[in-house]
Amino acid sequence: MTDLSEALKSTAAAVTRQLDELLPQIGGPRGRVVEAMRYACLAGGKRLRPFLTVASARLFDVRDPRALRVAAAVEMIHCYSLVHDDLPAMDDSDLRRGQPTVHRKFDEATAILAGDGLLTEAFAILSEPATHKDPLIRGELTRGLAEAAGARGMVGGQQVDMSHERAELDLDGITELQRMKTGALIEFACEAGAILGGADTESRTALRAYARDLGLAFQIADDLLDVEASSEQAGKPTGRDAEAGKATFVGLMGQKRARIRAEELVDSACGHLDRFGDKADLLRHTAQFVVNRPS
Amino acid sequence: MTDLSEALKSTAAAVTRQLDELLPQIGGPRGRVVEAMRYACLAGGKRLRPFLTVASARLFDVRDPRALRVAAAVEMIHCYSLVHDDLPAMDDSDLRRGQPTVHRKFDEATAILAGDGLLTEAFAILSEPATHKDPLIRGELTRGLAEAAGARGMVGGQQVDMSHERAELDLDGITELQRMKTGALIEFACEAGAILGGADTESRTALRAYARDLGLAFQIADDLLDVEASSEQAGKPTGRDAEAGKATFVGLMGQKRARIRAEELVDSACGHLDRFGDKADLLRHTAQFVVNRPS
Repeated sequence: MTDLSEALKSTAAAVTRQLDELLPQIGGPRGRVVEAMRYACLAGGKRLRPFLTVASARLFDVRDPRALRVAAAVEMIHCYSLVHDDLPAMDDSDLRRGQPTVHRKFDEATAILAGDGLLTEAFAILSEPATHKDPLIRGELTRGLAEAAGARGMVGGQQVDMSHERAELDLDGITELQRMKTGALIEFACEAGAILGGADTESRTALRAYARDLGLAFQIADDLLDVEASSEQAGKPTGRDAEAGKATFVGLMGQKRARIRAEELVDSACGHLDRFGDKADLLRHTAQFVVNRPS
Repeated sequence: MTDLSEALKSTAAAVTRQLDELLPQIGGPRGRVVEAMRYACLAGGKRLRPFLTVASARLFDVRDPRALRVAAAVEMIHCYSLVHDDLPAMDDSDLRRGQPTVHRKFDEATAILAGDGLLTEAFAILSEPATHKDPLIRGELTRGLAEAAGARGMVGGQQVDMSHERAELDLDGITELQRMKTGALIEFACEAGAILGGADTESRTALRAYARDLGLAFQIADDLLDVEASSEQAGKPTGRDAEAGKATFVGLMGQKRARIRAEELVDSACGHLDRFGDKADLLRHTAQFVVNRPS
């Protein structure tokens, strides 16, 4: 697991450098939105999704520098979704990663625009020749990211999360919600490595299956953190789902069963990696890490 | 000009059909955001931007059905920007095209998500093989749209429009603001036709120059409508820029000089079309129409 800590740390630093390089630098009145985009992306975070892209790409001998642009685009989409989800009209959150959210640090209009800017920038990056020499691969990446982010993915998931029906979801309903809201981007983050590496269909399917189990385990662990961790540990308000009367995995299953289910999902996720042998150890350790993380 | 009216009308109908076909159809709780996306796109509008794509594509013998997917993506970006610009944190508008704005018809969270969904969907469409068989052309379209929509284009323009500095902009400042906020997408709409048609650099440059003049003329005409037309004619509140103390072309130049400047820009726009001969008559008439439109 020390190898994983090292890898997570060094990849997170590389992703931050890549984001810093790719995000626009503009002065003047319109510079405010760029400042907010940079604040949203450069203030830290685990960088789990871009790490999954880099680690998946390594399975196909894609070197890190070639995977980092795609990884940064994935992280921009993640950060855009946090900025918009935190808005007063949505989850109305004041803190994110222990810092004021974008609309608290800047203002609401700037936060909306910064999210729009990050969403757009991610597609700009994927469409540039520097991302991959083969335009077919760039196109597949663009299409995959758009599917993960759109109405059938993250946008649809957030809509369900805000809906009247949200409180009464059963386990199947929450699982579907999670798969859209957070799972879709995690699945794309993993598959992107395979796309970059020109992997065969079987490998792509295996990586998606790994990512699907991982994403669900991640969400269950998130629910567990929400009831177990203090706000300080988590770097954001905790206990809010229960307060808001939202059905959660932990609420429906209880802490003990939820913990067991998360561990089962980790085993299942790792099983999908058999075809890759030792080469996939980093992804296996990542799955373990995801359910045992402190925040 | 009768030819133009006919062409505008039939293209608008074709664009609406194309949008209807391309927009997702989903039921259940997440269906609400799709309903809002459809409401934002299918409630009418002049469809000027997609018309420019179709008309520009015709210069290079690209048949309408092949241009309509790109035209629809352009219109989705236009509609997303209207939905977000109308939000309470931005322009706080209740009416758009004579109908309640998306956040008034649905709610604020749904309006934010519907905008995000439209922005994402536009990129999904451009990246699909059905848009053009050549992945290089799909990539160029994606990149061009992202540049027009991003922090250097529409997002940056809206940020300036919301800024403290907005009230004191001089003519150069307003011209730059307009070029980002509305001009960038108009330029892309025209250039997209040339990209689809595999046009040479000179033709692309000429079309962009036409679009730049047209976009500026369009904005001046918009300012003139804002002071001259009633709210009923315009289908949205008028006189709001002056009320908000925002510098406008009309405010800085006066109505008479603004009208003359708009006409000069139309002449200049048409001049850039010389190389295309009679084939560009539709685009010439469009420029005339833009400064003489009733709403």
